[in-house]
Amino acid sequence: MSEIVLLGTGNLATHLFEAFSNHTNYKIIQVYGRTQESAGYFKDKVSITSDFRDLRAADIYLTAVSDHAIQEVIQRIPAQKGLVAHTSGSTPLLSLAQRNGVFYPVQTFTKNTTVCFSGIPVCVEADSESDTQLLEDMAKSISNHVYRLNSEQRKALHLAAVFSCNFTNHLYRIAEDICNKHLIDFKILQPLIIETAQKLTVSSAKENQTGPAIRKDQNTIKRQLDQLQATSLKELYTLFTQLIQQENEGKL
Amino acid sequence: MSEIVLLGTGNLATHLFEAFSNHTNYKIIQVYGRTQESAGYFKDKVSITSDFRDLRAADIYLTAVSDHAIQEVIQRIPAQKGLVAHTSGSTPLLSLAQRNGVFYPVQTFTKNTTVCFSGIPVCVEADSESDTQLLEDMAKSISNHVYRLNSEQRKALHLAAVFSCNFTNHLYRIAEDICNKHLIDFKILQPLIIETAQKLTVSSAKENQTGPAIRKDQNTIKRQLDQLQATSLKELYTLFTQLIQQENEGKL
Repeated sequence: MSEIVLLGTGNLATHLFEAFSNHTNYKIIQVYGRTQESAGYFKDKVSITSDFRDLRAADIYLTAVSDHAIQEVIQRIPAQKGLVAHTSGSTPLLSLAQRNGVFYPVQTFTKNTTVCFSGIPVCVEADSESDTQLLEDMAKSISNHVYRLNSEQRKALHLAAVFSCNFTNHLYRIAEDICNKHLIDFKILQPLIIETAQKLTVSSAKENQTGPAIRKDQNTIKRQLDQLQATSLKELYTLFTQLIQQENEGKL
Repeated sequence: MSEIVLLGTGNLATHLFEAFSNHTNYKIIQVYGRTQESAGYFKDKVSITSDFRDLRAADIYLTAVSDHAIQEVIQRIPAQKGLVAHTSGSTPLLSLAQRNGVFYPVQTFTKNTTVCFSGIPVCVEADSESDTQLLEDMAKSISNHVYRLNSEQRKALHLAAVFSCNFTNHLYRIAEDICNKHLIDFKILQPLIIETAQKLTVSSAKENQTGPAIRKDQNTIKRQLDQLQATSLKELYTLFTQLIQQENEGKL
């Protein structure tokens, strides 16, 4: 049985706590929150504290705090022998503790939404092979999709996620705005949007590309550019059209 | 019982044929294909023809052909009293037949993939109220999501689909390329991509926006721009970052 101290009380901390609750091999023995109130969710379930001096000895200290707070939190954990792992995709493996690691679940977490952790990929890294193995085993105990990624790869993965999730969501917003403006129920597009995402599990984005750009349908491209009013949206439309056409010709 | 002649033998035609097979109120009585071979799939199931002169009298003539072929196909249907409807999202309501309509299923169809038509939105339009009703009833007999959209709205919907599906797929491709380049399994991102799409069914894209741009995390933005090599990708990253930040400040 490995004992874990969880530092953080937000969405990710809550979901990790639930994933490890009633686990045979891993037990969260304490949750740290900045204030007693912030740890309210946990108080009837596990020992809580808001004082670093009260942190208990554990095998693993897992931080689930905002990126900008990671360093400070780790530095305030009293000298201990446990492995200290953060859960951030965009933060490299640190060298602040004696043993350092990363335990990064690749998903966005929303409060009050139950997630099935087994389907969520977890990427692990540590500064020794034995600790990498330790985190890998821990990840495999809650997820069926565990990957070893080094900091350089995780940085690239984070960039890829910005394109495929953050920017994609903004494209959804543009589509939502166009629909609203024309009194069209945005729900009409949702099955197509979900199908476009799900298709990636059976074929590559390259194979799945459709639309006026790849068909070089100049009439539609011209007409759609005319439909757009904002200069920045015309610019975005033109840039995507060029990128899709160039990629397809192998020019990038 | 309404009788339908289906013109076209591609993916959409096949899926429409299946959706209406064994239907109580609608019966596809004939399928037209450019050649006897192209209609091969249908030949043991229904009467087929490759000669416009052999088209049978029907209540509805439904074209499921490429956008550029719609006009020619409709013009070659011998003078008849039936309603002639096309299935194209990007084509306006035409005035080529005595009675004209649009029956547009909003989904991409892939051969050999069974689809459940009941979940696919269908948008209808016609040049009379009674024909709009006729198409609406026909759509409701196979789909639970039927909408009346005029040509102007359908044109806007098509533009919205280009942003939220075609351009989105290209963002997936960029992410896939970044992963491949760094020997990262693109599968790691798939659950997050699907979650980003599915979130739209519970909250708006505006509410769902996350990432460095909306957080105004200048360190990450600068670092990620440095990670990108191709000028066009730097340009795309910068444009999205501006759009997300401007939209959020209500400047657009």
